[in-house]
Amino acid sequence: MGTTNRVFNFAPGPAVLPLPVLEEAQRDLVALPGVGMSVLEISHRSKTFEAIIQECEANIRKLIGIPENYYVLFLAGGATLQFSMVPLNLLAAGETADYITTGSWSEKALKEANKVGTVHVAFTGKAENFVRVPKQQELQFTPNAAYVHLAGNETIHGVEFHALPDVGNVPLVADTSSHMLSRPLDIRKYAVIYAGAQKNIGPAGCTLVILRDDMLAKAKANPAYEKLPIMLQYGPHVADKSLHNTPPAFAVYIMNLVSRWLLGLGGLAAIEAINIRKAQKLYAEIDRTGFYRGHARKEDRSRMNVPFRLPNEQLEEKFVKESKAAGLDGLKGHRSVGGLRASIYNAFPEAGVDALIAFMREFEKKNG
Amino acid sequence: MGTTNRVFNFAPGPAVLPLPVLEEAQRDLVALPGVGMSVLEISHRSKTFEAIIQECEANIRKLIGIPENYYVLFLAGGATLQFSMVPLNLLAAGETADYITTGSWSEKALKEANKVGTVHVAFTGKAENFVRVPKQQELQFTPNAAYVHLAGNETIHGVEFHALPDVGNVPLVADTSSHMLSRPLDIRKYAVIYAGAQKNIGPAGCTLVILRDDMLAKAKANPAYEKLPIMLQYGPHVADKSLHNTPPAFAVYIMNLVSRWLLGLGGLAAIEAINIRKAQKLYAEIDRTGFYRGHARKEDRSRMNVPFRLPNEQLEEKFVKESKAAGLDGLKGHRSVGGLRASIYNAFPEAGVDALIAFMREFEKKNG
Repeated sequence: MGTTNRVFNFAPGPAVLPLPVLEEAQRDLVALPGVGMSVLEISHRSKTFEAIIQECEANIRKLIGIPENYYVLFLAGGATLQFSMVPLNLLAAGETADYITTGSWSEKALKEANKVGTVHVAFTGKAENFVRVPKQQELQFTPNAAYVHLAGNETIHGVEFHALPDVGNVPLVADTSSHMLSRPLDIRKYAVIYAGAQKNIGPAGCTLVILRDDMLAKAKANPAYEKLPIMLQYGPHVADKSLHNTPPAFAVYIMNLVSRWLLGLGGLAAIEAINIRKAQKLYAEIDRTGFYRGHARKEDRSRMNVPFRLPNEQLEEKFVKESKAAGLDGLKGHRSVGGLRASIYNAFPEAGVDALIAFMREFEKKNG
Repeated sequence: MGTTNRVFNFAPGPAVLPLPVLEEAQRDLVALPGVGMSVLEISHRSKTFEAIIQECEANIRKLIGIPENYYVLFLAGGATLQFSMVPLNLLAAGETADYITTGSWSEKALKEANKVGTVHVAFTGKAENFVRVPKQQELQFTPNAAYVHLAGNETIHGVEFHALPDVGNVPLVADTSSHMLSRPLDIRKYAVIYAGAQKNIGPAGCTLVILRDDMLAKAKANPAYEKLPIMLQYGPHVADKSLHNTPPAFAVYIMNLVSRWLLGLGGLAAIEAINIRKAQKLYAEIDRTGFYRGHARKEDRSRMNVPFRLPNEQLEEKFVKESKAAGLDGLKGHRSVGGLRASIYNAFPEAGVDALIAFMREFEKKNG
């Protein structure tokens, strides 16, 4: 079993996982060593699973450097459920939440918050089709807002915050789904972070949520809190350490293997160096002649998701088709940006970036 | 790799899966044949995953015999999220929903519905500590209720509806988590069915929801519907065929393998015959001398979850400890019933029931 039959998977998520993680999961799939059951079968109340979820939390705390006053949760429903849980818990009647929209995902978050309470758009890049993050002086914040929400990296538009805006004393809430664990993170700047696992952390089915303890207190003080569906209250998940009901256990198991893999590589600074190298190579090729054009402004380009265009749609279709035949899978861009998109998350091998660059040169030579 | 190192897993869920399913998943875990990626890595928008989820739906439709006017959905959040989604979608202001409570899980469903609107308890077995289902004449229904809710099988108390109550023209909603696909099911008697996968259908992380089309129309006509979190509205899940956001893809993949396994066995009538045989054997042993005592009344005993007591708690502790050492895992009962509980779902091998019976005889001989 193994590696020779694998293609390069540029999909935006679910996305490529580290091969050693897949190989360990494969080895133990029918029976975990010393347990006699598959990880797919073990009770979430068993000592075996408790050890897995506790190690996963400890590893993530270590990787990021998360202090004791933050909870680390493993929830279901994806970032999309967090789009609702954040305002349902943290935006009380009479308060305003500020939203910065830099792409499709922060727009979706805004839409869900709009159902819950009063929101204010502090900045939107929509008129420019989301090519950049705002400059500090463009941000129009509400005084004493309940929180400021942003998406750290926009998977579709390939726009990433390389520095956080200054939000003063207002709690900062961020969807970090598509760049979580790809770089060091100063958790003290955030009140809440959430991230669907299926890009850098694990398979689909689990959402990592990091919640500062004063936000839980704020949620519990919200008069609407008691009437929320129990699965949408942060409290029971905190109290029961993500085991209020049956968690997505297999996803947590894989996340734990991924966290071990990251620690083994040397942690977030080490993976960031690799990610910078991969992204710089690819953007250098995009910028080399003008045949390829990146979507986002250079200073706000994502290291994870690299959308780019070709001179025309016919060539883009040809590129998708021929690259797939060459073992480069998942390069078709999202319809809202068009063209191509290469997602090159933590587990995406540098050899795959090199293969894409070689293919791009060859393609340009033939079609340029 | 294989079978000899596996124990008998009596856990109530997540629970034992069919060995051929685990072996196929293991074989293909690093790269699906002809795809070159792990099923943990493939895009939920890919043709590969579309084929998996469509086959899984088709197989479940075939197994149960689900007509076209029902939607089949694969959702996240467990049955616990459905406890809220059902009333949020289907219980409008001014309406009353009737709840039948026969154990812990139907009580939890009632509690969540209470947050949403007006509920009426049509029957509760609480005073007897949930040993039975109601007789028809005990049920006190609200005329023109929005729906009647029940739990088809109570995992903790081991109480199962072997015949459905007559609810007239009122829509029947059922949590069937712990006996779904264990027996034939007349879907036309139900308006909504939901079931966490992690007992008979697959691993933790996915909930199977079967929804009659008039219930979707009723939800959309509910004035509160538009303000619901998008993940809690049934509409987007129906419109996007369970792919509104990234689904728990690996769980769906395993569910598809389980559905194939069930079809290969001969479908629900075939597995029911096996389940009846396994349950009858075990209950016969429980009833043999009086040393063991079942929790539920005989006529309402669950075929899936078999809670039973011993003469005293010291013996119960000893039984748990010694049975575990003998390779019979997960027999400790839930604290609300005490004693022991054997969960013997579809995939639980008959040899494991025989092994438990042999152990029980030996234990009684030594300690009786």
